[in-house]
Amino acid sequence: MSTRTPIPVPEAISRVIEKSKAGGTERVQLKDTIGRYLAEDIVADHPIPHFNRSAFDGFAIRSDDTLEANFENPIELKLIESIAAGQVATKEVGSHEATRIMTGAQVPIGADAILALELSETLEKEGEVWVRLNRPIPKGTHISEKGEDVQEGAILAHKGRRISAGEMAMLAMFGYHEVQVYKQPIVGIFVTGTELLPVEAEIEPGKIRNSNSYMLESQIKALGGIPQFYGLLPDDFELCYREINEALKKVDYLITTGGASVGDFDYVQDIVAKLGADTLFNKIAMRPGSVTTVATLGDKWIFGLSGNPAACFVGFELFARPVLRTFSGSKAPHLPRSKARLSHAIKKPNPFTRFTRAKAELQGSQVVVSSIGVDKSGIASALVEANALLVVPGGTRELKEGEELEIIWLDRYEEGYKHV
Amino acid sequence: MSTRTPIPVPEAISRVIEKSKAGGTERVQLKDTIGRYLAEDIVADHPIPHFNRSAFDGFAIRSDDTLEANFENPIELKLIESIAAGQVATKEVGSHEATRIMTGAQVPIGADAILALELSETLEKEGEVWVRLNRPIPKGTHISEKGEDVQEGAILAHKGRRISAGEMAMLAMFGYHEVQVYKQPIVGIFVTGTELLPVEAEIEPGKIRNSNSYMLESQIKALGGIPQFYGLLPDDFELCYREINEALKKVDYLITTGGASVGDFDYVQDIVAKLGADTLFNKIAMRPGSVTTVATLGDKWIFGLSGNPAACFVGFELFARPVLRTFSGSKAPHLPRSKARLSHAIKKPNPFTRFTRAKAELQGSQVVVSSIGVDKSGIASALVEANALLVVPGGTRELKEGEELEIIWLDRYEEGYKHV
Repeated sequence: MSTRTPIPVPEAISRVIEKSKAGGTERVQLKDTIGRYLAEDIVADHPIPHFNRSAFDGFAIRSDDTLEANFENPIELKLIESIAAGQVATKEVGSHEATRIMTGAQVPIGADAILALELSETLEKEGEVWVRLNRPIPKGTHISEKGEDVQEGAILAHKGRRISAGEMAMLAMFGYHEVQVYKQPIVGIFVTGTELLPVEAEIEPGKIRNSNSYMLESQIKALGGIPQFYGLLPDDFELCYREINEALKKVDYLITTGGASVGDFDYVQDIVAKLGADTLFNKIAMRPGSVTTVATLGDKWIFGLSGNPAACFVGFELFARPVLRTFSGSKAPHLPRSKARLSHAIKKPNPFTRFTRAKAELQGSQVVVSSIGVDKSGIASALVEANALLVVPGGTRELKEGEELEIIWLDRYEEGYKHV
Repeated sequence: MSTRTPIPVPEAISRVIEKSKAGGTERVQLKDTIGRYLAEDIVADHPIPHFNRSAFDGFAIRSDDTLEANFENPIELKLIESIAAGQVATKEVGSHEATRIMTGAQVPIGADAILALELSETLEKEGEVWVRLNRPIPKGTHISEKGEDVQEGAILAHKGRRISAGEMAMLAMFGYHEVQVYKQPIVGIFVTGTELLPVEAEIEPGKIRNSNSYMLESQIKALGGIPQFYGLLPDDFELCYREINEALKKVDYLITTGGASVGDFDYVQDIVAKLGADTLFNKIAMRPGSVTTVATLGDKWIFGLSGNPAACFVGFELFARPVLRTFSGSKAPHLPRSKARLSHAIKKPNPFTRFTRAKAELQGSQVVVSSIGVDKSGIASALVEANALLVVPGGTRELKEGEELEIIWLDRYEEGYKHV
């Protein structure tokens, strides 16, 4: 049994970040890149608009012609052509001429304003069509100028950004039919514990069903990784060692849950030692999740998380998440943090920094947070309610209602939350 | 060409919500339910803990035995058995006896407290093992009582909730190896516009590449739907009608982009009419996206969104999203809203309610919002930067820095945002 020295949370996070590295990249069809991370910048291959574009349905005209127009003295312009979006005018618009134009079409040479269809009247005279208007139309009206939105060569998004709706639109607009993206981390999962039953099993005295592997698969997928569940580790050191050693060849990262404590039957420490892996830490001054172990073996990582679901959840989010997201090319690997006002006092002093499941919500424009349920690491059900972790600093000071504390926002946008 | 009467945004949203219905449900293997919506409540089939559980590695003891223990007068308890998690004690713990126990194991009959391993010393005397301690251990120490976390029959999550990490853990814990979930909405997409090029094409005068279908696929997937892209609609009314009519047989919802304006070549209105669909509205008093059309044909819906990417994005999020999420069983179909303080004044008056792309961030515990880029619907690049829509009410009043306005949070947790 190894001796364990707890280190502070920020120190543990620094050790993890220091060793984290971006993974490899690959070329992927645009439609398959949703949720992936850019391994190249999105660069504009043309300006937007890439021509002076009509922003309205109406007529392309010369503004000078309309200077004197008013209700008493309407002016008339001769219709010389009709163009649709995607078509290009063949004629220049001359003095007192107009070209019918659709939203999105290129403004013809000679024209410098668009007269909205609603402000005009068309009439036929001697086989010709005329457009009548009764007010001046200033130069530039309803025209989006070339390059007004995006200049050629502009960078729309930098590598490392996750691709969602906006990035997809930009990638398509600028012709990225294939995109260089970061590979998705492959993350193996083992659960340990002779008390564990499969989810299909009837409950038995002294046993609980395995829930951590399902929870972790969901957490891994949420950040773009590929989970591989390898099942329950056997209660036999040599067999256990061989299985972990084999699995490490097939994955980028390996997570075990349970077997991380100091009990007689906990041997994650021994396996890490036998593998010759480099332990970054094996105890953290925090609750829950104090017995989290993180070790590296070359480029591979082993995360020994607690078997307790709440501690397993927090250990993953604080220490595995930044490593996996850095592999994915992300420049902002952590969950977002902010301050929040406490909706209630916290009386119970505790020497350790605690990460309690909490519910954060916006009251007006102000973030307010309440911790959920009893403050014990066993309260697994709080995972369903929580959309944040409340960071309660260690110490004996009572925290008052309305005080500002730090919170960590979880990846949730679900029902029951006004926000996030 | 039909006459269009703009209706206020809240009225448009009410019309959509009023007609929205939950879709069908299906039975799915637990591991495949990530991101799906519960069509049944999660009910606890057993209490948690479902036995008095040791929360620590150590010894199960009787607290009464330790009342007198102190540093000068340590007491000794006789070790009668060792149990691991998942094993059940065979012996009752009697007076001055102790049973070795692991975290997670069932506390043996007779014991009412756990003595932490760290606080004890073991010694051998005449072939027997004794546990020595030098302080009183109060009743209940390190024991999680049966039902303390969850009582049998408790509802952990109600139907309609999206399944993420916490729900997965609960589903597994309570033996849901299969789960009744809502079906995913199948959403067809057509783009219209003779100006559109495929993403592989070189840019040409007067043309732009199709980006809306990629953006919409991403938006649909983000909320759990299944997008089906049917390509570019032909520039021929009859052909166009036939394609839409055919597609409607294969999908739950159909989205078209472009062809929604009042131009000569815009015929979404006519197709809706020919289909005999019921138009909920075809113009909204808002910018961008004023020419959004929504129509229903039995249980099927047709969303005629603007061809402009920014308007298309907003139209989808405001009007299609709640319909799709309601189909998915969600009870909270809209994007989350909150207030935010303006980081700058907004001078330009506008008669219409505007939804401008914005960046919201938490400064301390306070939400602050800035609108992004120029305020024109053509500014597609703002989609990349935005994590919120700022709702600028119609009217002529200048909005001051620091004023509280409503914002709508977008589904983004990405780089560059401190938050969300």
